[in-house]
Amino acid sequence: MATMQMVSDAYQARQTVLAASKNPFAQGVAWVEGKLAPLHEARIPLLDQGLMHSDLTYDVPSVWDGRFFRLDDHITRLEASCVKLRLKLPLPHEEVKSILVDMVAKSGIRDAFVEIIVTRGLKGVRGTDPKSIINSLYMFIQPYVWVMEPEMQPTGGSAIIARTVRRTPPGSMDPTIKSLQWGDLVRGLHEASDRGAMYPFLTVSDTNLTEGSGFNIILVKDNILYTPSRGVLEGITRKSVIDAAQINGYEIRVALVPDGMVGPVTKKIWDTYWAMHYDEAFSFEISYEGKEARL
Amino acid sequence: MATMQMVSDAYQARQTVLAASKNPFAQGVAWVEGKLAPLHEARIPLLDQGLMHSDLTYDVPSVWDGRFFRLDDHITRLEASCVKLRLKLPLPHEEVKSILVDMVAKSGIRDAFVEIIVTRGLKGVRGTDPKSIINSLYMFIQPYVWVMEPEMQPTGGSAIIARTVRRTPPGSMDPTIKSLQWGDLVRGLHEASDRGAMYPFLTVSDTNLTEGSGFNIILVKDNILYTPSRGVLEGITRKSVIDAAQINGYEIRVALVPDGMVGPVTKKIWDTYWAMHYDEAFSFEISYEGKEARL
Repeated sequence: MATMQMVSDAYQARQTVLAASKNPFAQGVAWVEGKLAPLHEARIPLLDQGLMHSDLTYDVPSVWDGRFFRLDDHITRLEASCVKLRLKLPLPHEEVKSILVDMVAKSGIRDAFVEIIVTRGLKGVRGTDPKSIINSLYMFIQPYVWVMEPEMQPTGGSAIIARTVRRTPPGSMDPTIKSLQWGDLVRGLHEASDRGAMYPFLTVSDTNLTEGSGFNIILVKDNILYTPSRGVLEGITRKSVIDAAQINGYEIRVALVPDGMVGPVTKKIWDTYWAMHYDEAFSFEISYEGKEARL
Repeated sequence: MATMQMVSDAYQARQTVLAASKNPFAQGVAWVEGKLAPLHEARIPLLDQGLMHSDLTYDVPSVWDGRFFRLDDHITRLEASCVKLRLKLPLPHEEVKSILVDMVAKSGIRDAFVEIIVTRGLKGVRGTDPKSIINSLYMFIQPYVWVMEPEMQPTGGSAIIARTVRRTPPGSMDPTIKSLQWGDLVRGLHEASDRGAMYPFLTVSDTNLTEGSGFNIILVKDNILYTPSRGVLEGITRKSVIDAAQINGYEIRVALVPDGMVGPVTKKIWDTYWAMHYDEAFSFEISYEGKEARL
């Protein structure tokens, strides 16, 4: 069974290798209009409706230690989000998958944050014949992004329940569609910072707890796990934590208890979560051999 | 006093001149990182937080018949929106103004839609030292964009009160900050289209009417004008309509009466609104002489 320290040490060793890489894509690679470019040089049309009206959806799979984690789950959710927004994933599921695997292999990145964005395209919905709208696809990978830095994970971070902002309610934005309309979440981040904390937890108009700035919330009390059932994204990481809880025989319920620290149950779930990254049922290995890009 | 037909005819004549223009910026020009480019070729960094989290605000002044309309009002509101979002307009007010005037003159466009966007920049708020965040500015102008085509204005369009989506409430998004997080408005546009109408009017959770997809709502009943006072953008066009109503001696109130057609009061307001575009109190003339771009 993986443990926090082992996972963290092995990751740091891979980071050292990556830092020394001369691969031009080692700090990230983007796929735009069928072409690959170093991530920080990639550009998109100013008129894309993704910028013009945040008219898009996206998903964020990850690669851990050279293995893609739950990639099919992410692409399947992305397709479902597209349907809800009347968008169409511009490439077939399997093609998106093979391009992403190829990008990771070319970059040589062993631990990657992967983002797939589908936007309305260059024409907005207002006053436009839907048939003339062609959706756009942008993809990129970059070294793994932590919502909480590894050094902080053994002890946990500090969060506040935001009181100056509420989560956008489902009647305005369907929370099951992964959205980059982060106005409420950014307000929450500012409030957290003002109050000396790192993370905001947002409530919705019915006062129920929803989610934080880019993460679902799962609470543990008396060995039982609690997570909001509605008004939230059906997160793949949330799903993995539920799977990890079930593997360990813990009960999961819905509740509103919003405070705590890292305890033994969290640690057990954490270990199982990372072990799943080496389990063929949840991840598959990427072949990097002979594929890395060169200057 | 201007009238709909005269305004429309003169505009069509200018459109014919523009359509024949060989100016490389005649279909639009963008300002990105200090450089001008034809609008449809302009590109921005994929990693800009404007796309990544719609973390931005913007404003849309206009040029009518070679005159900038209420430009200072728009830039002042943009600065106020920036403060509310903890952004900073990257250039001084007067410099933004002179760049825009220069862009319009170079393009030769006499009737222009002008957009100024301020984004968080290349770094997101989460986990970033605020001091290391440098905001980005993007500006563009293009031929005038109509929310309702001129031919349709004498008779009006069709609108529905959306019932499948509600406007994002002020507790989640401050409606006085001009936002491109259009998720709710795009849902409304889809519902309008499904129901055979052109425009959605959105209500907020308290059931009050708010605004449509990119426009404020002003209703007329028994010679009195009504417009929602809260939960809405303090629109500059709304302000102009209020000014035009006052010039004509009409009373303005707040109300919820959401149906109607183009009547005599609307026509009078419309005439005054367009006459204001030639009034030095609200607009100033742009000098195009010797400034137009050439291939």
